[in-house]
This record gives sequence, structure tokens and C-alpha cells, in this order.
Amino acid sequence: MPLIDLIGYAAGFLILISIIPQILKSWRTKSAKDLSLSRYIIYITGVLLWLIYGIVLVNGPMILINSINLVLASSVLYLIIKYGKSSKKKKN
Amino acid sequence: MPLIDLIGYAAGFLILISIIPQILKSWRTKSAKDLSLSRYIIYITGVLLWLIYGIVLVNGPMILINSINLVLASSVLYLIIKYGKSSKKKKN
Repeated sequence: MPLIDLIGYAAGFLILISIIPQILKSWRTKSAKDLSLSRYIIYITGVLLWLIYGIVLVNGPMILINSINLVLASSVLYLIIKYGKSSKKKKN
Repeated sequence: MPLIDLIGYAAGFLILISIIPQILKSWRTKSAKDLSLSRYIIYITGVLLWLIYGIVLVNGPMILINSINLVLASSVLYLIIKYGKSSKKKKN
């Protein structure tokens, strides 16, 4: 594989897995109040649209990567909903 | 523009701007202890590699998007370094 393609794949791989330390941290500390809920709602909407784009184009790698991304990002969203609310109760 | 291309662009745009609410939240609350430092170090490394990939391929949109992404992600990294340390002092 040419070096430049390797750089491209490494970039995609790092960006994809980068969310895992956040999942582990929020899960371990059971705290997510500093994480932005809007950030993950917008992000997941984007990934979902990208997945639809991949499905319409019948692009295998795009479908695979965005499906994994969707699961990972949804995990953070779940942790924010579960552990991020405590400090926001006053806003209601 | 065909609808499918519009979906692709909308996906990229949402993913790119999704980090902004996190910057605003961390900046306003002056708290970032729940954010994973490793997550942003790995992410920024990936975006940097992707920028290099775009530069080598002389791909304008890729260079533009990854440059913006690099600035946005670096802002969060800066906020984590500035506001995320307080609860980690004990680890030293």
C-alpha cells in the first residue's frame, strides 16, 4: 500500500477510535456534566446522514465506518443522558 | 445539486460544526474535567494526518475542512488543559 494511502487510513482509524477514551472515562467516572449534549445530537445527526449517503451510494467502507461511529457516538449520548443531568436540574 | 450530494454535504457540515457547542460550553462553565484528554489528542492526530493527506493529494475541500477542524478541536484541547486539571492533581 502506498504511504499516502496508509496516512489516509490511519487518519480515519484514529478519528473513528478517538471517541473510545471518552466512553471509558464517562463510564468509569459516572460523570458527564461537562460534555455538551447538543454536540453529540448534532454529531449523531451528521453521522446518520453520512450513513444514508453511504447506503444510497452502496459504498461498503462508508457504511461500515459510519455504523461503527453511530454506535460509539450513541454510547456517549447515552452516558450524557444518564450521568450529565445532575447539574442541569435547576434549569427546569 | 442532487439531493444525495446535499445529504453528503449536510453530513460533513454537521459533523464539522458539532464541536462548537462543546467549545462554548467548556468556555462558559470553565469546567472540562469530564472531557477525555486522550480523546482529543488522538482525534487531533487523526485530523492532522487527514490534512497532510489532503495537502499531498492537493484536494482543496479536504485541506479547508481539516484546517477548520484542526482549529476547532485544538480549542477544546486548550480548554481541557486549562479547565480539566483540577480533579486530576491527586494522580501525580
